[in-house]
Amino acid sequence: MSRELLLIGIGAGDPDWVTLEAVRAIQRLDVLFVVLKEDELDDLVEARREVLGRHRQTLPRIVELNDPPRPWRTAPDYNAAVALWRAQRRELWSAALTAELGDDGVGGFLVWGDPSLFESTLAIVHEVLRDFSEPVELRVVPGVSSVHALTARHRIPLNRQGRAVQILPARLLADGMPDGVDDVVAMLDGKLAFNSIDPAGIDIYWGAYLGTPDELLISGDLAKVRDEIVRVRAEAAARKGWMFDTYLLRRR
Amino acid sequence: MSRELLLIGIGAGDPDWVTLEAVRAIQRLDVLFVVLKEDELDDLVEARREVLGRHRQTLPRIVELNDPPRPWRTAPDYNAAVALWRAQRRELWSAALTAELGDDGVGGFLVWGDPSLFESTLAIVHEVLRDFSEPVELRVVPGVSSVHALTARHRIPLNRQGRAVQILPARLLADGMPDGVDDVVAMLDGKLAFNSIDPAGIDIYWGAYLGTPDELLISGDLAKVRDEIVRVRAEAAARKGWMFDTYLLRRR
Repeated sequence: MSRELLLIGIGAGDPDWVTLEAVRAIQRLDVLFVVLKEDELDDLVEARREVLGRHRQTLPRIVELNDPPRPWRTAPDYNAAVALWRAQRRELWSAALTAELGDDGVGGFLVWGDPSLFESTLAIVHEVLRDFSEPVELRVVPGVSSVHALTARHRIPLNRQGRAVQILPARLLADGMPDGVDDVVAMLDGKLAFNSIDPAGIDIYWGAYLGTPDELLISGDLAKVRDEIVRVRAEAAARKGWMFDTYLLRRR
Repeated sequence: MSRELLLIGIGAGDPDWVTLEAVRAIQRLDVLFVVLKEDELDDLVEARREVLGRHRQTLPRIVELNDPPRPWRTAPDYNAAVALWRAQRRELWSAALTAELGDDGVGGFLVWGDPSLFESTLAIVHEVLRDFSEPVELRVVPGVSSVHALTARHRIPLNRQGRAVQILPARLLADGMPDGVDDVVAMLDGKLAFNSIDPAGIDIYWGAYLGTPDELLISGDLAKVRDEIVRVRAEAAARKGWMFDTYLLRRR
């Protein structure tokens, strides 16, 4: 008897960025868990469905995990509210695993990009399995992350020889480029952080909807191209209804 | 008429970490360039040959690029010697591309891991193409890098929520963990840098020969496991004749 749970990285955009290991893992699934957050994007749900359909003759059972609504920042006791929300989510996931994995089932999640990078599924699964009554074998299938998608499409190295590179959530750029590194990849930028730092001596390599037919790429001297990025980004977000972008800032 | 040059990331270890895009790229090759450095490892040449053999009925033409010997650190005018060495290499690669791509050939390189990360092929190709007389379309196929291989095999997130992660060559650890980041991945550690930093409050996730039958994984409190890593690493290096390892240092 063995239960397995597979976290399958499916790459960040192009359906051909799926690895052979991911294809095999998809083919082994008895049940696929689909996490639906409040702000889940139809296009990303659709992209996962496409990957699934390409590599399965018959679909696995599909179980939706509807994450409880996240508390508002303005909730009276925000920290307690978040703790409660996390506990609810853990309970929901735990109940689903118990009900769906049975004694020897193979369950899984399709994870955008790579399961280790700016992705919460793995951390939640660890929380759930810590308190789980039965043993579950957890496997992580690595994928092409959006960082490597970005550098591939711009055809640039990520790091320079002998030098460090930092990957950070864009809000950490509020005080400018971090000390000691000249190459920085920003993720999750909802507030155009690249547009509020001092652009002197910095090049940007920006990409949105990487690896898809809607892909957008802009690069150059940050001082010269940032207005264009702001404009193109706003137009695309209005047209598609969502935006998923990332960029590398590189000190010259 | 169009010449193409494909830099194909084949993943960092397991042959199943090849993506579908990489498989298609491999199948399109008329000519494969194989870079043979002085210190090239037979096992890595063999691993690339295996990936090639799996996805081709008939092999492409194989052209070996024997990099000229790199000047010694102690050479009288080291910088000039390196410049000359680079120029020789550029000339060698350029001549090979000219001779082998013809007017409409598809050439390529199989690159370990992802072509953007601690990998020199892309930078050299850019140098060569800058002076190339004929237009060549350069394409980069992203891959599963050793960073994602490491986190997948340890089943851990790379970054923590809202936090930055830094990837650096191990020699930059000489002064300890960099400021401002609590998660650091070290590459190319020939000198056991993890063993000479202050281990207080730091966990390590170490891996060698990731994704292969010889894979080694050790993790835990750096103060407690570093001696074991040093021992296991030395034994494995002696047994196999080479070592390829990487690790994440995580402040608790």
